[in-house]
Amino acid sequence: MNTITKTSPPLTIGVFGAGRVASALVSALKAAGHYIVFIASRSPGPAALLAAALPGCLVLSMEETAAALPAAEVYLLAVPDAAVASLLTTVSWPAGAVVAHTAGALPLAVFETVPQVRGGVLYPLQTFSPGRAIDWSAVPLFVEAATAEAEDRLLTLARSLSRRVALLDSGRRLRLHLGAVFASNFTNHLLGVAQALLAGAGLSFELLHPLVQETISKALAAQSSPFEVQTGPAVRHDAATLAAHEAALAAEPAWQELYARLSVSIQAAAAGS
Amino acid sequence: MNTITKTSPPLTIGVFGAGRVASALVSALKAAGHYIVFIASRSPGPAALLAAALPGCLVLSMEETAAALPAAEVYLLAVPDAAVASLLTTVSWPAGAVVAHTAGALPLAVFETVPQVRGGVLYPLQTFSPGRAIDWSAVPLFVEAATAEAEDRLLTLARSLSRRVALLDSGRRLRLHLGAVFASNFTNHLLGVAQALLAGAGLSFELLHPLVQETISKALAAQSSPFEVQTGPAVRHDAATLAAHEAALAAEPAWQELYARLSVSIQAAAAGS
Repeated sequence: MNTITKTSPPLTIGVFGAGRVASALVSALKAAGHYIVFIASRSPGPAALLAAALPGCLVLSMEETAAALPAAEVYLLAVPDAAVASLLTTVSWPAGAVVAHTAGALPLAVFETVPQVRGGVLYPLQTFSPGRAIDWSAVPLFVEAATAEAEDRLLTLARSLSRRVALLDSGRRLRLHLGAVFASNFTNHLLGVAQALLAGAGLSFELLHPLVQETISKALAAQSSPFEVQTGPAVRHDAATLAAHEAALAAEPAWQELYARLSVSIQAAAAGS
Repeated sequence: MNTITKTSPPLTIGVFGAGRVASALVSALKAAGHYIVFIASRSPGPAALLAAALPGCLVLSMEETAAALPAAEVYLLAVPDAAVASLLTTVSWPAGAVVAHTAGALPLAVFETVPQVRGGVLYPLQTFSPGRAIDWSAVPLFVEAATAEAEDRLLTLARSLSRRVALLDSGRRLRLHLGAVFASNFTNHLLGVAQALLAGAGLSFELLHPLVQETISKALAAQSSPFEVQTGPAVRHDAATLAAHEAALAAEPAWQELYARLSVSIQAAAAGS
Protein backbone atom coordinates (compact mmCIF):
# COMPACT_ATOMS: atom_id res chain seq x y z
CA MET A 1 0.00 0.00 0.00
CA ASN A 2 3.02 2.27 0.47
CA THR A 3 4.10 4.07 -2.67
CA ILE A 4 6.70 6.39 -1.15
CA THR A 5 10.14 6.40 -2.73
CA LYS A 6 12.65 5.73 0.02
CA THR A 7 15.26 8.48 -0.04
CA SER A 8 16.61 8.07 3.48
CA PRO A 9 18.02 5.14 5.46
CA PRO A 10 15.73 3.21 7.80
CA LEU A 11 15.39 4.43 11.38
CA THR A 12 15.35 2.45 14.60
CA ILE A 13 12.06 3.02 16.37
CA GLY A 14 10.55 2.16 19.73
CA VAL A 15 6.75 2.00 19.87
CA PHE A 16 4.56 2.51 22.93
CA GLY A 17 1.04 1.13 22.59
CA ALA A 18 -0.57 -1.85 20.88
CA GLY A 19 -4.02 -0.51 20.06
CA ARG A 20 -5.57 0.76 16.81
CA VAL A 21 -3.12 3.57 16.09
CA ALA A 22 -0.06 1.58 17.19
CA SER A 23 -1.06 -1.41 15.05
CA ALA A 24 -1.61 0.77 12.00
CA LEU A 25 1.68 2.62 12.60
CA VAL A 26 3.64 -0.59 13.09
CA SER A 27 2.55 -1.98 9.73
CA ALA A 28 3.29 1.32 7.99
CA LEU A 29 6.74 1.56 9.63
CA LYS A 30 7.50 -2.02 8.66
CA ALA A 31 6.36 -1.44 5.06
CA ALA A 32 8.59 1.65 4.89
CA GLY A 33 11.60 -0.47 5.94
CA HIS A 34 12.15 0.88 9.44
CA TYR A 35 13.43 -1.31 12.25
CA ILE A 36 11.11 -1.56 15.24
CA VAL A 37 13.30 -2.19 18.27
CA PHE A 38 10.52 -2.79 20.79
CA ILE A 39 6.82 -2.52 21.45
CA ALA A 40 5.93 -1.50 24.99
CA SER A 41 2.38 -1.92 26.27
CA ARG A 42 0.31 -2.23 29.39
CA SER A 43 -1.27 -5.44 28.02
CA PRO A 44 1.40 -7.86 26.74
CA GLY A 45 -0.94 -9.95 24.54
CA PRO A 46 -1.63 -7.43 21.73
CA ALA A 47 2.00 -6.19 21.84
CA ALA A 48 3.31 -9.74 21.44
CA LEU A 49 0.95 -10.29 18.52
CA LEU A 50 2.21 -7.13 16.79
CA ALA A 51 5.87 -7.96 17.53
CA ALA A 52 5.53 -11.51 16.20
CA ALA A 53 5.62 -10.15 12.64
CA LEU A 54 8.76 -8.08 13.33
CA PRO A 55 12.12 -9.90 13.42
CA GLY A 56 14.10 -9.06 16.56
CA CYS A 57 11.40 -6.82 18.01
CA LEU A 58 11.23 -6.93 21.82
CA VAL A 59 8.03 -6.82 23.85
CA LEU A 60 8.47 -4.67 26.95
CA SER A 61 6.25 -4.29 29.99
CA MET A 62 5.74 -0.82 31.45
CA GLU A 63 7.91 -1.86 34.41
CA GLU A 64 10.78 -2.67 32.05
CA THR A 65 10.50 0.72 30.32
CA ALA A 66 10.71 2.39 33.75
CA ALA A 67 13.94 0.54 34.50
CA ALA A 68 15.80 1.00 31.18
CA LEU A 69 15.03 1.54 27.51
CA PRO A 70 16.73 0.07 24.41
CA ALA A 71 18.31 2.74 22.19
CA ALA A 72 16.18 4.00 19.29
CA GLU A 73 16.33 7.03 17.00
CA VAL A 74 12.65 7.80 17.52
CA TYR A 75 10.26 6.75 20.29
CA LEU A 76 6.59 6.91 19.26
CA LEU A 77 3.79 7.17 21.81
CA ALA A 78 0.68 5.66 20.21
CA VAL A 79 -1.24 5.40 23.47
CA PRO A 80 -4.50 6.99 24.68
CA ASP A 81 -4.11 10.78 25.07
CA ALA A 82 -4.79 10.51 28.79
CA ALA A 83 -1.83 8.12 29.22
CA VAL A 84 0.82 10.32 27.58
CA ALA A 85 1.65 12.66 30.49
CA SER A 86 2.21 9.89 33.04
CA LEU A 87 4.08 7.76 30.51
CA LEU A 88 6.51 10.63 29.92
CA THR A 89 7.42 10.87 33.60
CA THR A 90 7.52 7.10 34.23
CA VAL A 91 9.72 5.84 31.41
CA SER A 92 13.49 5.87 31.81
CA TRP A 93 14.27 7.98 28.71
CA PRO A 94 17.87 8.12 27.46
CA ALA A 95 19.13 11.74 27.58
CA GLY A 96 18.26 13.55 24.35
CA ALA A 97 15.78 10.92 23.21
CA VAL A 98 13.50 12.02 20.35
CA VAL A 99 10.00 11.19 21.62
CA ALA A 100 6.84 11.97 19.66
CA HIS A 101 3.21 11.48 20.52
CA THR A 102 0.61 10.82 17.82
CA ALA A 103 -2.37 12.73 19.27
CA GLY A 104 -4.36 15.47 17.57
CA ALA A 105 -5.46 17.22 20.74
CA LEU A 106 -2.32 17.13 22.94
CA PRO A 107 -0.14 20.26 22.81
CA LEU A 108 3.63 20.06 22.42
CA ALA A 109 3.77 21.56 25.92
CA VAL A 110 2.99 18.11 27.34
CA PHE A 111 6.76 17.48 27.07
CA GLU A 112 7.64 20.34 29.44
CA THR A 113 7.80 17.96 32.41
CA VAL A 114 10.61 15.95 30.76
CA PRO A 115 13.32 18.44 29.73
CA GLN A 116 15.85 15.62 29.12
CA VAL A 117 13.69 14.54 26.13
CA ARG A 118 13.46 16.12 22.66
CA GLY A 119 9.69 16.15 22.36
CA GLY A 120 7.64 16.23 19.21
CA VAL A 121 4.40 15.27 17.49
CA LEU A 122 3.63 13.00 14.56
CA TYR A 123 -0.15 13.22 14.06
CA PRO A 124 -1.72 11.01 11.40
CA LEU A 125 -5.08 12.42 10.23
CA GLN A 126 -6.95 9.17 9.70
CA THR A 127 -9.28 6.77 11.51
CA PHE A 128 -7.87 3.33 12.21
CA SER A 129 -9.74 0.11 12.88
CA PRO A 130 -8.67 -3.52 13.15
CA GLY A 131 -8.70 -5.37 9.85
CA ARG A 132 -8.80 -2.27 7.63
CA ALA A 133 -5.76 -1.58 5.46
CA ILE A 134 -4.92 2.11 5.04
CA ASP A 135 -3.03 3.72 2.16
CA TRP A 136 -0.50 5.54 4.31
CA SER A 137 0.98 7.38 1.34
CA ALA A 138 -2.22 9.49 1.27
CA VAL A 139 -2.60 9.99 5.04
CA PRO A 140 -1.82 13.61 5.97
CA LEU A 141 0.90 13.60 8.65
CA PHE A 142 1.51 16.67 10.82
CA VAL A 143 4.82 17.24 12.58
CA GLU A 144 5.73 19.59 15.40
CA ALA A 145 8.86 19.73 17.57
CA ALA A 146 10.60 22.10 19.96
CA THR A 147 14.08 21.53 18.56
CA ALA A 148 15.39 21.56 14.99
CA GLU A 149 16.97 18.14 15.43
CA ALA A 150 13.76 16.48 16.56
CA GLU A 151 11.83 18.26 13.82
CA ASP A 152 14.26 17.03 11.14
CA ARG A 153 14.13 13.47 12.35
CA LEU A 154 10.33 13.43 12.57
CA LEU A 155 9.98 15.02 9.14
CA THR A 156 12.30 12.34 7.71
CA LEU A 157 10.23 9.64 9.35
CA ALA A 158 6.92 11.19 8.23
CA ARG A 159 8.09 11.57 4.63
CA SER A 160 9.07 7.92 4.52
CA LEU A 161 5.44 7.04 5.31
CA SER A 162 3.35 9.61 3.41
CA ARG A 163 3.55 12.10 0.56
CA ARG A 164 1.39 14.55 2.54
CA VAL A 165 3.57 15.87 5.37
CA ALA A 166 3.38 19.34 6.90
CA LEU A 167 4.52 21.21 10.00
CA LEU A 168 1.62 22.31 12.22
CA ASP A 169 1.62 24.06 15.59
CA SER A 170 -0.40 22.77 18.57
CA GLY A 171 -3.22 25.32 18.32
CA ARG A 172 -3.97 24.66 14.67
CA ARG A 173 -3.55 20.90 15.19
CA LEU A 174 -6.25 21.02 17.89
CA ARG A 175 -8.55 22.84 15.46
CA LEU A 176 -7.79 20.28 12.74
CA HIS A 177 -8.50 17.44 15.17
CA LEU A 178 -11.77 19.10 16.16
CA GLY A 179 -12.76 19.37 12.49
CA ALA A 180 -11.87 15.71 12.08
CA VAL A 181 -14.21 14.78 14.93
CA PHE A 182 -17.10 16.57 13.19
CA ALA A 183 -16.20 15.09 9.80
CA SER A 184 -15.57 11.54 10.97
CA ASN A 185 -16.74 10.60 14.47
CA PHE A 186 -19.98 12.59 14.31
CA THR A 187 -20.87 11.58 10.76
CA ASN A 188 -20.26 7.94 11.69
CA HIS A 189 -22.63 8.36 14.64
CA LEU A 190 -25.33 9.89 12.44
CA LEU A 191 -25.00 6.97 10.04
CA GLY A 192 -25.49 4.69 13.05
CA VAL A 193 -28.64 6.58 14.03
CA ALA A 194 -29.91 6.28 10.44
CA GLN A 195 -29.23 2.53 10.48
CA ALA A 196 -31.16 2.20 13.75
CA LEU A 197 -34.09 4.26 12.45
CA LEU A 198 -34.35 2.08 9.34
CA ALA A 199 -33.98 -1.12 11.35
CA GLY A 200 -36.92 0.05 13.50
CA ALA A 201 -39.06 0.03 10.34
CA GLY A 202 -37.69 -3.33 9.17
CA LEU A 203 -35.64 -1.65 6.42
CA SER A 204 -32.07 -2.47 5.44
CA PHE A 205 -29.32 0.13 5.95
CA GLU A 206 -28.07 -0.90 2.52
CA LEU A 207 -30.93 1.13 0.99
CA LEU A 208 -29.11 4.29 2.13
CA HIS A 209 -25.76 3.42 0.55
CA PRO A 210 -26.31 5.21 -2.81
CA LEU A 211 -27.63 8.28 -0.96
CA VAL A 212 -24.68 8.39 1.45
CA GLN A 213 -22.16 7.91 -1.34
CA GLU A 214 -23.71 10.69 -3.43
CA THR A 215 -23.94 13.00 -0.40
CA ILE A 216 -20.26 12.56 0.42
CA SER A 217 -19.09 12.85 -3.21
CA LYS A 218 -21.10 16.03 -3.57
CA ALA A 219 -19.87 17.51 -0.27
CA LEU A 220 -16.21 16.80 -1.09
CA ALA A 221 -16.64 18.25 -4.58
CA ALA A 222 -18.27 21.48 -3.34
CA GLN A 223 -16.40 24.58 -4.52
CA SER A 224 -16.06 26.42 -1.23
CA SER A 225 -18.03 24.46 1.40
CA PRO A 226 -20.49 21.57 1.82
CA PHE A 227 -22.92 24.24 3.08
CA GLU A 228 -23.35 25.21 -0.61
CA VAL A 229 -24.91 21.88 -1.51
CA GLN A 230 -27.11 21.44 1.56
CA THR A 231 -30.48 19.82 0.79
CA GLY A 232 -33.34 18.58 2.98
CA PRO A 233 -36.31 19.91 4.94
CA ALA A 234 -34.33 22.17 7.31
CA VAL A 235 -32.63 24.27 4.64
CA ARG A 236 -35.98 24.50 2.79
CA HIS A 237 -37.70 25.60 6.04
CA ASP A 238 -40.26 22.87 5.36
CA ALA A 239 -42.08 23.20 8.69
CA ALA A 240 -44.56 20.35 8.09
CA THR A 241 -41.82 17.81 7.35
CA LEU A 242 -39.70 18.98 10.29
CA ALA A 243 -42.74 18.55 12.56
CA ALA A 244 -43.56 15.11 11.10
CA HIS A 245 -39.95 13.96 11.64
CA GLU A 246 -39.79 15.26 15.19
CA ALA A 247 -43.10 13.55 15.96
CA ALA A 248 -41.75 10.30 14.49
CA LEU A 249 -38.85 10.55 16.98
CA ALA A 250 -41.12 10.80 20.04
CA ALA A 251 -39.84 7.45 21.34
CA GLU A 252 -36.18 8.53 20.94
CA PRO A 253 -35.98 11.88 22.79
CA ALA A 254 -32.17 12.18 22.52
CA TRP A 255 -32.28 11.79 18.75
CA GLN A 256 -35.28 14.12 18.59
CA GLU A 257 -33.18 16.76 20.36
CA LEU A 258 -30.27 16.14 17.95
CA TYR A 259 -32.69 16.45 15.03
CA ALA A 260 -33.93 19.84 16.26
CA ARG A 261 -30.43 21.20 17.01
CA LEU A 262 -28.95 20.05 13.71
CA SER A 263 -31.91 21.52 11.81
CA VAL A 264 -31.44 24.89 13.52
CA SER A 265 -27.70 24.74 12.82
CA ILE A 266 -28.40 24.02 9.12
CA GLN A 267 -30.73 27.02 8.97
CA ALA A 268 -28.15 29.25 10.69
CA ALA A 269 -25.44 28.16 8.24
CA ALA A 270 -27.75 28.89 5.30
CA ALA A 271 -28.50 32.33 6.73
CA GLY A 272 -24.75 32.93 6.87
CA SER A 273 -24.80 33.45 10.63
CA MET B 1 -26.37 6.18 -17.02
CA ASN B 2 -29.53 4.06 -17.25
CA THR B 3 -28.87 0.36 -17.54
CA ILE B 4 -32.44 -0.90 -17.18
CA THR B 5 -33.70 -3.30 -19.83
CA LYS B 6 -36.90 -1.85 -21.19
CA THR B 7 -39.58 -4.49 -20.94
CA SER B 8 -42.63 -2.25 -21.15
CA PRO B 9 -43.80 0.39 -23.64
CA PRO B 10 -43.11 4.05 -22.90
CA LEU B 11 -45.65 5.96 -20.89
CA THR B 12 -47.01 9.46 -21.40
CA ILE B 13 -46.17 11.59 -18.39
CA GLY B 14 -47.04 15.06 -17.12
CA VAL B 15 -44.56 16.63 -14.72
CA PHE B 16 -45.28 19.32 -12.12
CA GLY B 17 -42.21 21.19 -10.90
CA ALA B 18 -38.93 22.34 -12.42
CA GLY B 19 -36.60 22.21 -9.43
CA ARG B 20 -33.93 19.70 -8.41
CA VAL B 21 -36.12 16.62 -8.17
CA ALA B 22 -38.13 17.47 -11.29
CA SER B 23 -34.97 18.10 -13.33
CA ALA B 24 -33.43 14.83 -12.23
CA LEU B 25 -36.69 12.95 -12.90
CA VAL B 26 -37.14 14.49 -16.33
CA SER B 27 -33.72 13.35 -17.51
CA ALA B 28 -34.28 9.86 -16.10
CA LEU B 29 -37.72 9.62 -17.74
CA LYS B 30 -36.28 10.79 -21.05
CA ALA B 31 -33.40 8.31 -20.84
CA ALA B 32 -35.90 5.51 -20.16
CA GLY B 33 -37.81 6.44 -23.33
CA HIS B 34 -40.96 7.91 -21.80
CA TYR B 35 -42.84 10.75 -23.44
CA ILE B 36 -43.14 13.88 -21.31
CA VAL B 37 -46.32 15.61 -22.40
CA PHE B 38 -45.90 18.79 -20.35
CA ILE B 39 -43.97 20.44 -17.56
CA ALA B 40 -46.06 22.69 -15.33
CA SER B 41 -44.41 25.13 -12.96
CA ARG B 42 -44.94 28.31 -11.00
CA SER B 43 -41.80 29.80 -12.61
CA PRO B 44 -41.88 29.40 -16.42
CA GLY B 45 -38.10 29.93 -16.95
CA PRO B 46 -36.74 26.68 -15.47
CA ALA B 47 -39.68 24.69 -16.92
CA ALA B 48 -38.98 26.06 -20.42
CA LEU B 49 -35.31 25.16 -20.01
CA LEU B 50 -36.20 21.59 -19.06
CA ALA B 51 -38.79 21.27 -21.83
CA ALA B 52 -36.40 22.57 -24.50
CA ALA B 53 -34.63 19.19 -24.52
CA LEU B 54 -37.93 17.29 -24.90
CA PRO B 55 -39.54 17.21 -28.39
CA GLY B 56 -43.20 18.24 -28.23
CA CYS B 57 -43.20 18.90 -24.50
CA LEU B 58 -45.51 21.75 -23.47
CA VAL B 59 -44.76 24.29 -20.77
CA LEU B 60 -47.84 25.05 -18.70
CA SER B 61 -48.50 27.78 -16.18
CA MET B 62 -50.38 26.92 -12.99
CA GLU B 63 -53.37 28.87 -14.36
CA GLU B 64 -53.44 26.65 -17.44
CA THR B 65 -53.38 23.47 -15.29
CA ALA B 66 -56.36 24.84 -13.36
CA ALA B 67 -58.31 25.29 -16.58
CA ALA B 68 -57.57 21.98 -18.35
CA LEU B 69 -54.85 19.31 -18.43
CA PRO B 70 -53.43 17.37 -21.41
CA ALA B 71 -54.01 13.59 -21.12
CA ALA B 72 -51.16 11.56 -19.61
CA GLU B 73 -50.88 8.05 -18.16
CA VAL B 74 -49.08 9.32 -15.07
CA TYR B 75 -48.90 12.79 -13.53
CA LEU B 76 -45.86 13.30 -11.31
CA LEU B 77 -45.75 16.00 -8.61
CA ALA B 78 -42.09 16.89 -8.07
CA VAL B 79 -42.85 20.08 -6.14
CA PRO B 80 -42.06 21.17 -2.56
CA ASP B 81 -43.95 19.02 -0.02
CA ALA B 82 -45.83 22.08 1.21
CA ALA B 83 -47.18 22.75 -2.30
CA VAL B 84 -48.69 19.29 -2.90
CA ALA B 85 -51.98 19.65 -1.01
CA SER B 86 -53.01 22.92 -2.65
CA LEU B 87 -51.81 21.72 -6.07
CA LEU B 88 -54.09 18.68 -5.77
CA THR B 89 -57.17 20.82 -5.21
CA THR B 90 -56.29 23.50 -7.80
CA VAL B 91 -55.46 21.47 -10.89
CA SER B 92 -58.20 20.34 -13.21
CA TRP B 93 -57.49 16.58 -13.05
CA PRO B 94 -59.11 14.29 -15.62
CA ALA B 95 -61.38 11.76 -13.85
CA GLY B 96 -59.36 8.68 -12.85
CA ALA B 97 -56.00 10.35 -13.41
CA VAL B 98 -53.03 8.49 -11.89
CA VAL B 99 -51.23 11.17 -9.86
CA ALA B 100 -48.14 10.46 -7.76
CA HIS B 101 -46.10 12.70 -5.50
CA THR B 102 -42.37 12.10 -5.00
CA ALA B 103 -42.04 13.09 -1.33
CA GLY B 104 -40.60 10.97 1.47
CA ALA B 105 -42.58 12.57 4.28
CA LEU B 106 -46.06 13.03 2.75
CA PRO B 107 -48.58 10.28 3.49
CA LEU B 108 -50.75 8.75 0.80
CA ALA B 109 -53.68 10.29 2.71
CA VAL B 110 -52.83 13.65 1.14
CA PHE B 111 -54.92 12.44 -1.82
CA GLU B 112 -58.11 12.09 0.27
CA THR B 113 -59.26 15.58 -0.74
CA VAL B 114 -59.32 14.59 -4.44
CA PRO B 115 -61.37 11.37 -4.73
CA GLN B 116 -61.61 11.71 -8.53
CA VAL B 117 -57.86 11.01 -8.70
CA ARG B 118 -56.01 7.69 -8.36
CA GLY B 119 -53.33 8.85 -5.94
CA GLY B 120 -49.93 7.32 -5.36
CA VAL B 121 -46.32 7.84 -4.40
CA LEU B 122 -43.07 7.40 -6.29
CA TYR B 123 -40.31 8.28 -3.80
CA PRO B 124 -36.71 8.29 -5.05
CA LEU B 125 -34.24 7.84 -2.17
CA GLN B 126 -31.46 10.10 -3.40
CA THR B 127 -30.20 13.68 -3.10
CA PHE B 128 -30.35 15.72 -6.29
CA SER B 129 -28.37 18.81 -7.18
CA PRO B 130 -27.94 20.78 -10.39
CA GLY B 131 -25.10 19.57 -12.56
CA ARG B 132 -24.71 16.17 -10.89
CA ALA B 133 -25.57 13.10 -12.97
CA ILE B 134 -27.20 10.28 -11.00
CA ASP B 135 -27.16 6.58 -11.84
CA TRP B 136 -30.91 6.08 -11.62
CA SER B 137 -30.65 2.33 -12.07
CA ALA B 138 -29.24 2.19 -8.50
CA VAL B 139 -31.63 4.70 -6.90
CA PRO B 140 -34.07 2.90 -4.58
CA LEU B 141 -37.62 3.82 -5.65
CA PHE B 142 -40.56 3.31 -3.30
CA VAL B 143 -44.12 3.01 -4.56
CA GLU B 144 -47.42 3.28 -2.74
CA ALA B 145 -50.95 3.58 -4.12
CA ALA B 146 -54.53 3.23 -2.92
CA THR B 147 -55.74 1.29 -5.96
CA ALA B 148 -54.31 -1.74 -7.74
CA GLU B 149 -54.39 0.07 -11.09
CA ALA B 150 -52.36 3.05 -9.89
CA GLU B 151 -49.95 0.71 -8.08
CA ASP B 152 -49.39 -1.34 -11.25
CA ARG B 153 -48.78 1.70 -13.37
CA LEU B 154 -46.37 3.29 -10.88
CA LEU B 155 -44.49 0.00 -10.43
CA THR B 156 -44.13 -0.25 -14.22
CA LEU B 157 -42.84 3.30 -14.36
CA ALA B 158 -40.47 2.78 -11.40
CA ARG B 159 -39.05 -0.44 -12.85
CA SER B 160 -38.28 1.33 -16.10
CA LEU B 161 -36.06 3.73 -14.14
CA SER B 162 -34.38 1.59 -11.48
CA ARG B 163 -33.58 -2.00 -10.60
CA ARG B 164 -34.32 -1.27 -6.91
CA VAL B 165 -38.09 -0.85 -6.65
CA ALA B 166 -40.24 -1.76 -3.65
CA LEU B 167 -43.69 -1.10 -2.24
CA LEU B 168 -43.62 0.87 1.02
CA ASP B 169 -46.45 2.22 3.17
CA SER B 170 -46.56 5.86 4.34
CA GLY B 171 -45.46 5.18 7.93
CA ARG B 172 -42.35 3.24 6.98
CA ARG B 173 -41.59 5.72 4.18
CA LEU B 174 -41.58 8.57 6.74
CA ARG B 175 -39.14 6.57 8.88
CA LEU B 176 -36.94 5.90 5.84
CA HIS B 177 -37.00 9.58 4.93
CA LEU B 178 -36.09 10.48 8.51
CA GLY B 179 -33.14 8.08 8.37
CA ALA B 180 -32.12 9.66 5.07
CA VAL B 181 -32.07 13.11 6.70
CA PHE B 182 -29.67 11.84 9.39
CA ALA B 183 -27.52 9.98 6.85
CA SER B 184 -27.41 12.71 4.22
CA ASN B 185 -28.56 16.21 5.25
CA PHE B 186 -27.05 16.08 8.73
CA THR B 187 -23.77 14.48 7.65
CA ASN B 188 -23.45 17.11 4.92
CA HIS B 189 -23.94 19.82 7.53
CA LEU B 190 -21.27 18.33 9.79
CA LEU B 191 -18.85 18.25 6.86
CA GLY B 192 -19.65 21.93 6.35
CA VAL B 193 -18.89 22.65 10.01
CA ALA B 194 -15.60 20.74 9.68
CA GLN B 195 -14.71 22.76 6.58
CA ALA B 196 -15.42 26.00 8.45
CA LEU B 197 -13.37 24.93 11.49
CA LEU B 198 -10.38 24.11 9.29
CA ALA B 199 -10.78 27.33 7.30
CA GLY B 200 -10.65 29.23 10.60
CA ALA B 201 -7.16 27.78 11.14
CA GLY B 202 -6.09 28.46 7.54
CA LEU B 203 -6.28 24.75 6.68
CA SER B 204 -7.71 23.24 3.51
CA PHE B 205 -10.82 21.02 3.72
CA GLU B 206 -9.05 18.74 1.27
CA LEU B 207 -6.89 17.48 4.15
CA LEU B 208 -9.99 15.74 5.52
CA HIS B 209 -10.88 13.90 2.32
CA PRO B 210 -8.98 10.65 3.03
CA LEU B 211 -10.42 10.60 6.57
CA VAL B 212 -13.99 11.16 5.38
CA GLN B 213 -13.68 8.53 2.66
CA GLU B 214 -12.30 5.95 5.08
CA THR B 215 -14.97 6.82 7.69
CA ILE B 216 -17.79 6.30 5.19
CA SER B 217 -16.31 3.12 3.67
CA LYS B 218 -15.92 1.68 7.15
CA ALA B 219 -19.42 2.70 8.27
CA LEU B 220 -21.06 1.21 5.17
CA ALA B 221 -19.02 -1.99 5.56
CA ALA B 222 -19.94 -2.45 9.24
CA GLN B 223 -21.58 -5.83 9.92
CA SER B 224 -24.61 -4.70 11.87
CA SER B 225 -24.27 -0.93 12.44
CA PRO B 226 -21.84 1.98 12.12
CA PHE B 227 -22.04 2.16 15.94
CA GLU B 228 -19.70 -0.89 15.93
CA VAL B 229 -16.85 1.04 14.33
CA GLN B 230 -17.21 4.29 16.27
CA THR B 231 -13.87 5.95 17.10
CA GLY B 232 -12.96 9.30 18.66
CA PRO B 233 -12.74 10.98 22.05
CA ALA B 234 -16.43 10.59 23.01
CA VAL B 235 -16.59 6.81 22.70
CA ARG B 236 -13.23 6.57 24.55
CA HIS B 237 -14.61 8.85 27.31
CA ASP B 238 -11.47 10.95 26.85
CA ALA B 239 -12.54 13.80 29.15
CA ALA B 240 -9.46 15.98 28.58
CA THR B 241 -9.88 15.98 24.78
CA LEU B 242 -13.63 16.58 25.03
CA ALA B 243 -12.92 19.58 27.30
CA ALA B 244 -10.18 20.91 24.99
CA HIS B 245 -12.50 20.65 21.98
CA GLU B 246 -15.40 22.35 23.75
CA ALA B 247 -13.06 25.14 24.89
CA ALA B 248 -11.83 25.54 21.30
CA LEU B 249 -15.47 26.11 20.26
CA ALA B 250 -16.05 28.96 22.72
CA ALA B 251 -16.51 31.41 19.86
CA GLU B 252 -19.07 29.15 18.13
CA PRO B 253 -21.63 28.37 20.89
CA ALA B 254 -24.11 26.63 18.56
CA TRP B 255 -21.44 24.21 17.32
CA GLN B 256 -20.18 23.80 20.91
CA GLU B 257 -23.69 22.72 21.89
CA LEU B 258 -23.84 20.31 18.92
CA TYR B 259 -20.45 18.93 19.94
CA ALA B 260 -21.66 18.22 23.47
CA ARG B 261 -24.97 16.65 22.35
CA LEU B 262 -23.38 14.45 19.71
CA SER B 263 -20.72 13.30 22.17
CA VAL B 264 -23.37 12.33 24.72
CA SER B 265 -25.34 10.54 21.99
CA ILE B 266 -22.22 8.60 20.94
CA GLN B 267 -21.68 7.54 24.56
CA ALA B 268 -25.32 6.49 24.94
CA ALA B 269 -25.13 4.41 21.74
CA ALA B 270 -21.94 2.72 22.97
CA ALA B 271 -23.64 1.93 26.29
CA GLY B 272 -26.46 0.31 24.31
CA SER B 273 -29.07 2.65 25.72
